[in-house]
Amino acid sequence: MRTRPLKVALLGCGVVGSEVARIMTTHAADLAARIGAPVELAGVAVRRPDKVREGIPAELITTDATALVKRGDIDVVVELIGGIEPARSLITTAFEHGASVVSANKALLAQDGAGLHAIAEEQNKDLYYEAAVAGAIPLIRPLRESLAGDKVNRVLGIVNGTTNFILDKMDSTGAGYQEALDEASALGYAEADPTADVEGFDAAAKAAILAGIAFHTRVGLDDVYREGMTEVTAADFASAKGMGCTIKLLAICERAADGGSVTARVHPAMIPLAHPLASVRGAYNAVFVESDAAGQLMFYGPGAGGAPTASAVLGDLVAVCRNRISGATGPGASAYTQLPVSPMGEVVTRYHISLDVADKPGVLAQVATVFAEHGVSIDTVRQQGKDGEASLVVVTHHASDASLNGTVEALRSLDTVRGVASIMRVEGE
Amino acid sequence: MRTRPLKVALLGCGVVGSEVARIMTTHAADLAARIGAPVELAGVAVRRPDKVREGIPAELITTDATALVKRGDIDVVVELIGGIEPARSLITTAFEHGASVVSANKALLAQDGAGLHAIAEEQNKDLYYEAAVAGAIPLIRPLRESLAGDKVNRVLGIVNGTTNFILDKMDSTGAGYQEALDEASALGYAEADPTADVEGFDAAAKAAILAGIAFHTRVGLDDVYREGMTEVTAADFASAKGMGCTIKLLAICERAADGGSVTARVHPAMIPLAHPLASVRGAYNAVFVESDAAGQLMFYGPGAGGAPTASAVLGDLVAVCRNRISGATGPGASAYTQLPVSPMGEVVTRYHISLDVADKPGVLAQVATVFAEHGVSIDTVRQQGKDGEASLVVVTHHASDASLNGTVEALRSLDTVRGVASIMRVEGE
Repeated sequence: MRTRPLKVALLGCGVVGSEVARIMTTHAADLAARIGAPVELAGVAVRRPDKVREGIPAELITTDATALVKRGDIDVVVELIGGIEPARSLITTAFEHGASVVSANKALLAQDGAGLHAIAEEQNKDLYYEAAVAGAIPLIRPLRESLAGDKVNRVLGIVNGTTNFILDKMDSTGAGYQEALDEASALGYAEADPTADVEGFDAAAKAAILAGIAFHTRVGLDDVYREGMTEVTAADFASAKGMGCTIKLLAICERAADGGSVTARVHPAMIPLAHPLASVRGAYNAVFVESDAAGQLMFYGPGAGGAPTASAVLGDLVAVCRNRISGATGPGASAYTQLPVSPMGEVVTRYHISLDVADKPGVLAQVATVFAEHGVSIDTVRQQGKDGEASLVVVTHHASDASLNGTVEALRSLDTVRGVASIMRVEGE
Repeated sequence: MRTRPLKVALLGCGVVGSEVARIMTTHAADLAARIGAPVELAGVAVRRPDKVREGIPAELITTDATALVKRGDIDVVVELIGGIEPARSLITTAFEHGASVVSANKALLAQDGAGLHAIAEEQNKDLYYEAAVAGAIPLIRPLRESLAGDKVNRVLGIVNGTTNFILDKMDSTGAGYQEALDEASALGYAEADPTADVEGFDAAAKAAILAGIAFHTRVGLDDVYREGMTEVTAADFASAKGMGCTIKLLAICERAADGGSVTARVHPAMIPLAHPLASVRGAYNAVFVESDAAGQLMFYGPGAGGAPTASAVLGDLVAVCRNRISGATGPGASAYTQLPVSPMGEVVTRYHISLDVADKPGVLAQVATVFAEHGVSIDTVRQQGKDGEASLVVVTHHASDASLNGTVEALRSLDTVRGVASIMRVEGE
């Protein structure tokens, strides 16, 4: 084993960072054995230097993150501050000053992964970020390395624990969205401002990262269709149950049937109870991967939290340190397929549509005609009448999102259709 | 991209080998892009050279595997012939003649992984074998790399598809063992001689490999306690259901509570229906990993079959080729903890015991006394009487296997105990 330690700079010392620092200290001998050299915490950049940080020597604390990454003797910068700036500038500076980088920053990687990878490659350094997607679950490494000889066709995942907790609660207790969100907040599963989670922004960033890696192309944040789950109702869950389904907020990355393009989207969807993702409870995450040769794989585990995220960060840290010692770099960005990302309108899936209609003869025929005119084939229709009002539940065969939208628009203009109560995609069949 | 191709020698061209060769041809451009250089099939060693092998040029076929691995221009040898010899000699010769090795040979890796790793390291070559455990499921790479900064405490897995198919069939249809085995054979899930699967030899080899990697120590095949699943009855499934459990053949690798030793074992066990492993159906595999920081992770997918196993082989092939190009080697064997493997007697778990007893007063007291004398604490007892005979179902609290065995031996010697109908461990709670 070499004796000169590898020097690690930690940017950010919150829930994850303090856990990373703790494990680096308590498991120093294990890490050294696995890396082939000791690792040393060389500096910790924080915003509030006065906060007591157990186990971290005060002389390592600094508020000057830029000076820390510019030191020149840092082997690995671990970026855990999140957000776009100053994280991007700090990572860039780190590469330029000879360090490799481990990051958990999904927003930044989703927005500018390509740019950062380009700088890393230019400087012959590593950029690893297993922790950016689905916390502790090994996902980026399996996609990038284990499946490197395979052709991934679909990634279907629950990648946001907050929304899964809320939906699971609605499913199991019959609670409404607000009630379930309140419980998630009370238990610390939802932030004071839950927008990033419940509107699907967090999941969309992860979808962009996963799609890029899975399909060896570039998928930007703007390429990801995004629909939150705040409109999901107890009635939707009742409909789902009637179909032998439950509702999950899914991140779905797909290769088109002709192989010439890909799509990435985040939205609530019904999935059959028999699907392995249906039984993912609470704040757990799980990602289903379908490939040509391997078939169906699933990866399951805690998608957030200090210790789980630290586990992913440290796995990357060990890999990057090993690479430093051997003078190599790990597999970097791979975007050689240059597959274009198709808009949502081209996504093909099935739909569950609830309509409030007038309870009189001929309505079903009218509705069915509209579907037919838009080329959307109907699988089943269920009609329930009561006091002159009726509901019509239509489940379609596969159709493009554009056709479905056209259908729904036309339905809204029918006099006999009082309203479109809900439209929900059906996935995982 | 470098233009000189990396040369690959294939040893064995059966179900997996022919699929590897096929994908190397059909996906040549993808593999080249991901590796950074083209890969070329340089030779295929087979036993039956006259068999038609679609897509493989006849001039690549040879029966002289030794000459192939000795050629000196081979970059990677892919060993898919299985068994101990000649596989071991061929791998050794390959290393000595400058090649790295990808293998799917669980028997050989379980028996002599340490020896082969030592030769690989001596020659500064890679030895990768993701396909040796649980087919397509990325497991060795996540354990060795993703969790390299974490401390794994338990690996609990369904790692044999044949036995899972049989047990799933028994569970869902009420079939007996023989009937379910017959169906597995008819469907091609069980081999003509199913011994390696149903007696747990296959799973034990995988447990040895997983335990060694998970705990960074050496676990030999002889260190793994092994019990097959041929004695599992429909009555056992009925008992399991009564407890809210099902029965799976599990490979269990554990770190002792004091951290000073490890155990590895394969046996049928009851697990609660709520456990993610309980819902693994058919011939699928799944492995549950528990670690200090990451918490509970699960990896799920097809554990066997030509294409899935080829996916794992090719993932390794890409990694090894990348390493060749960068002049580095991947993480090799890691046995630095040198943790001893404790015998089965020291394993601590819970037990479900069915006794046939005389239906008369005082029997329960007698039985309870025997448990108490051996330090095995009882959780629940259920007594069912009929026609002078009765059955007593005891579920214990945690106890060592040695204490349990002592208890059972003493129970057998009681006049009032007519027989011990079944003993089943209870896991995953």
